[in-house]
Amino acid sequence: MAEAPTKFPEVQGGGSLIIAWQIKGKKVLVVGGGEVAAGRILHCLNADANVTVVAPRARLNPEVAYRVAQKQVTHVDRTFEPADLDGADMVLVAVDDPAASTQIWKLCKERRIPANIADVPPECDFYFGSVHRDGPLQIMVSTNGKGPRLASLIRKFIAKQLPSDAGRAIERVGQLRVRLRQIAPRPEDGPKRMAWMTKVSDAYPFDEICGLSDEDIGNLLRFYPAGKVPSLEELKAMRSSPPAEKLDVFDGSFGFSVGA
Amino acid sequence: MAEAPTKFPEVQGGGSLIIAWQIKGKKVLVVGGGEVAAGRILHCLNADANVTVVAPRARLNPEVAYRVAQKQVTHVDRTFEPADLDGADMVLVAVDDPAASTQIWKLCKERRIPANIADVPPECDFYFGSVHRDGPLQIMVSTNGKGPRLASLIRKFIAKQLPSDAGRAIERVGQLRVRLRQIAPRPEDGPKRMAWMTKVSDAYPFDEICGLSDEDIGNLLRFYPAGKVPSLEELKAMRSSPPAEKLDVFDGSFGFSVGA
Repeated sequence: MAEAPTKFPEVQGGGSLIIAWQIKGKKVLVVGGGEVAAGRILHCLNADANVTVVAPRARLNPEVAYRVAQKQVTHVDRTFEPADLDGADMVLVAVDDPAASTQIWKLCKERRIPANIADVPPECDFYFGSVHRDGPLQIMVSTNGKGPRLASLIRKFIAKQLPSDAGRAIERVGQLRVRLRQIAPRPEDGPKRMAWMTKVSDAYPFDEICGLSDEDIGNLLRFYPAGKVPSLEELKAMRSSPPAEKLDVFDGSFGFSVGA
Repeated sequence: MAEAPTKFPEVQGGGSLIIAWQIKGKKVLVVGGGEVAAGRILHCLNADANVTVVAPRARLNPEVAYRVAQKQVTHVDRTFEPADLDGADMVLVAVDDPAASTQIWKLCKERRIPANIADVPPECDFYFGSVHRDGPLQIMVSTNGKGPRLASLIRKFIAKQLPSDAGRAIERVGQLRVRLRQIAPRPEDGPKRMAWMTKVSDAYPFDEICGLSDEDIGNLLRFYPAGKVPSLEELKAMRSSPPAEKLDVFDGSFGFSVGA
């Protein structure tokens, strides 16, 4: 408040560093097999992790038991033992045993393994939030511990506001990037490619991008050589009269599709 | 597709594990002082980290130079040396030197320090996304690498949809939790407290919670002993006729505020 205003963003302390951790093919150890463990396991499977669950079979909740039966996770049918940490890249603990939890936390810290002990904030390298998922799109809501229930409410509120095909729109922009690389594959094209992709992303509001068809993407690419980006109206005006989907399917055999 | 449908959520691979990393008081080493480094530094300061920036002074961009001058970060005025990793809890690299970056990545992996090498996905334990921040509320958008620009567009789209006082609403629910603990402080009250907080969070849509005043929170607490939650209409009907704000300010000296 007392500092002179600058053109740089002011620091707003009290938050977390929210990051997209990469656990594809990594070993995640989940200790416990109850409801909280079930949620953690799903998060990890959605991120392509190799999940090992350590918990006596009798204590598995139906969802965890289902994932074990489906071989989506590896199951170790007993309580935790320190050797379970061998090779683990991340450890998630969700058992109703504070003493055991603290022991696991300490072992993880000795071995520098990132860990989360459910419901024990001081024994967590990271917290979970409420996550909306739609294909490549992930939106995570955190209230930094003020209201976990509220995080889930806000996630639902956001999901309702998002265009229904938001995930597909992102795939489409991903395809645009891939097709652009085919047109301009040389490393020295990099800066022009990046500058043009930025222009495209800035040219249309997000909900309008969701409405672009594969045909629109093809038309858009025609503007790349000149480094230009058409207005949304120009782009829509380029659409052929038959439905775009049909044109794509019959690409190269156009004569057959006319009037179909 | 071939599997029988179950009552459990289906796994949707290809995502990341999005987590709120806790770096309050932890040492984060940022190697590089350009625009990307500036963004990383702000993220870390917003999460109360002790940030050390390693980069020759001549290469600091204006924002990083400002943070150094303001003593918001510790500055090491030279290029990276392996000893910089001593005591580091996290390392963020953003330099235009692929060979040096790879060397730092390898050192971090030997020492099991979480690290992110900007623009080199295979040399990242985690990625960044686009973050909306409003007090205790943080919303992170990731497109899992399909479109970083798009992530920022989506973040802006979400920010526009959110009630303008979303952050304050979360603070208010946090206050409700604190005041509830004062009313019902015993550990054995825990389950009743949690059940009631859940009921409250489920009773009103998120945008309506944003509209609750401090007076409403006080009125709401009167329903706790009976374990009940009033409808929004009941709660609004309990409001006193003078503006709630004034009542709060003049609490205990009501006579003065009437007619003020």
